[in-house]
Amino acid sequence: MCELFGLTCNRPVGVGFTWRGFVARGIRHRDGWGVVFYPDGLSACVIKEARPSIDSPIAQFLKSANIIRSKIVISHVRTASKGAVVYRNTHPFIRELFGRDWAFAHNGTIIREMPMPRFYEPIGETDSERAFCLILDKLRDLGRGAGLQEKARIIEDEARRFSSFSDRFNFLMSDGEHLFAFRSETGSLHYTVRAPPHDAAVKLADEDFEVDLSDIKGEDEVAAVVATRQLTVGESWASLPPNKLVIFKDGLPYFSKEQWNILKYVRRSPHRVSIRDISKGIGIDIDEVVRSVAYLREMEMLRQDSRDIVSPTHPDATFYTNPNMRRIIDSILSRISL
Amino acid sequence: MCELFGLTCNRPVGVGFTWRGFVARGIRHRDGWGVVFYPDGLSACVIKEARPSIDSPIAQFLKSANIIRSKIVISHVRTASKGAVVYRNTHPFIRELFGRDWAFAHNGTIIREMPMPRFYEPIGETDSERAFCLILDKLRDLGRGAGLQEKARIIEDEARRFSSFSDRFNFLMSDGEHLFAFRSETGSLHYTVRAPPHDAAVKLADEDFEVDLSDIKGEDEVAAVVATRQLTVGESWASLPPNKLVIFKDGLPYFSKEQWNILKYVRRSPHRVSIRDISKGIGIDIDEVVRSVAYLREMEMLRQDSRDIVSPTHPDATFYTNPNMRRIIDSILSRISL
Repeated sequence: MCELFGLTCNRPVGVGFTWRGFVARGIRHRDGWGVVFYPDGLSACVIKEARPSIDSPIAQFLKSANIIRSKIVISHVRTASKGAVVYRNTHPFIRELFGRDWAFAHNGTIIREMPMPRFYEPIGETDSERAFCLILDKLRDLGRGAGLQEKARIIEDEARRFSSFSDRFNFLMSDGEHLFAFRSETGSLHYTVRAPPHDAAVKLADEDFEVDLSDIKGEDEVAAVVATRQLTVGESWASLPPNKLVIFKDGLPYFSKEQWNILKYVRRSPHRVSIRDISKGIGIDIDEVVRSVAYLREMEMLRQDSRDIVSPTHPDATFYTNPNMRRIIDSILSRISL
Repeated sequence: MCELFGLTCNRPVGVGFTWRGFVARGIRHRDGWGVVFYPDGLSACVIKEARPSIDSPIAQFLKSANIIRSKIVISHVRTASKGAVVYRNTHPFIRELFGRDWAFAHNGTIIREMPMPRFYEPIGETDSERAFCLILDKLRDLGRGAGLQEKARIIEDEARRFSSFSDRFNFLMSDGEHLFAFRSETGSLHYTVRAPPHDAAVKLADEDFEVDLSDIKGEDEVAAVVATRQLTVGESWASLPPNKLVIFKDGLPYFSKEQWNILKYVRRSPHRVSIRDISKGIGIDIDEVVRSVAYLREMEMLRQDSRDIVSPTHPDATFYTNPNMRRIIDSILSRISL
């Protein structure tokens, strides 16, 4: 089992890592740890090692939040399933595509032999790096001018295919601008959004590592955190929907303008609201509302009212905002212009 | 002006860097510094920053020889000529080709507009990264099965082309196994070989940075160092020949078996030796001896006797080993099997 951590913020922030799991348990994730970030938003800096952090001066060094400054950070701790314990098999991996570095960190084991990628060749022996190279091949085929949704569809298609022959298949991926997150049905990835007002210092800790986000404190700073497990108690973490590629950008899950409008409309309504009401209220057709509400439910932003006797896609189905997410929703809605 | 440093050793060694030029002069090479090495011989680790080292905790950190352990190390300090002072424009650059990371660091300014590479796209705006991508495109065209000499010829051809429209064009490049070095007519690159018996501790220092090679101390450890300027006094540094790609591997300049044999033959002879004598003595035809001797002269291993009245390619031209290089030559010849 490996652990994934991802962060996206609306401005470059300092992030400090302390790796603890190795120390605490001795045998967990001894096979490597790594972190990637984007000092200038285009080119990636990777720091990783194929050894337990307990005797690593670099791991000690990364405690300081002055080292990593970025809008996007991905980190990984590894317990090897395939591939020797060497640098080239340590996550995250990076490759350049169309003048940007893409980064990838993965958790799970692909149990079927995969084809050799055509353009991007793995340096190591992991299924993870090969999957990454195969996804990049597809993105390359898609061409330079492809839009975000086209790219997301390709990544999601490949991810679903790989997860169909994996025990589990969770990954975080980035192009320096977006953070892409995917978990398989059997996998695990959670997210939270840190929106103002911020507490004085923010440390996210579990038994494996600790992340110091105390640099995120400005009244206009928003950050989304994605992790294999909830890293804190007492704040709202939601599970990412299975088999869906979720896009984060600038500290928030990526929702369309319509999705934000729906969220706003439901939040501002004093009672539960039906799909039909939403459609009328903001002038979007029913099918689009059904699709958008489904995604907002999957992201645990909306909930269907338990008194409903219809399915969640019925025009009479009614919804309210997840109470656990309301502080986050309010904070975001007060800051974005729709 | 930038500074280049390269190291190749016959086994992975610890290398400590201390960056001093920034401190000493304040305005030299303030635009970035970087180092690349190969923890497992295939995949490259790059540590670099687009700022003066004087206020950099990472630069401080790299003093420790426990961080960098590799058979090959390339380092660079930058004074920007083209491209903003940002991470993506900081040397060294890396790209994967045929399942290996290639690394590149450059010194000089290319004054003509270059074409856009087809496969490898620059992330930043430097002429250096673009030249690197163009060279890799050619190597990719050459195909996976190409031999070392074919690859070297392609790199040399491209390097000569770029240097023909550069003020100067010096670079160090590696595939994790070989260290390739090139300097243009107007450029500067020097090399030395550290062969046993080793002095207790080895620090190479100039006003810009200091390299701690004290880990190189074994009786069977050999290292070649290439640098823009001679980093020490009191040991033998030779200038690399201009417009030639010089290959280093496993701590030595790459010479063919015939070239080593010639060197051995000349060294063991009590007097100067003619090309004709060498040809007869080791059974290689004259043309091959002429070519090999020319290269050994360019590498400052051999010198033509000043009493000669013929050109150095004449069969009667006579040669002896460069006295400054004899300690190195003896140490190497006693260790390699020919």
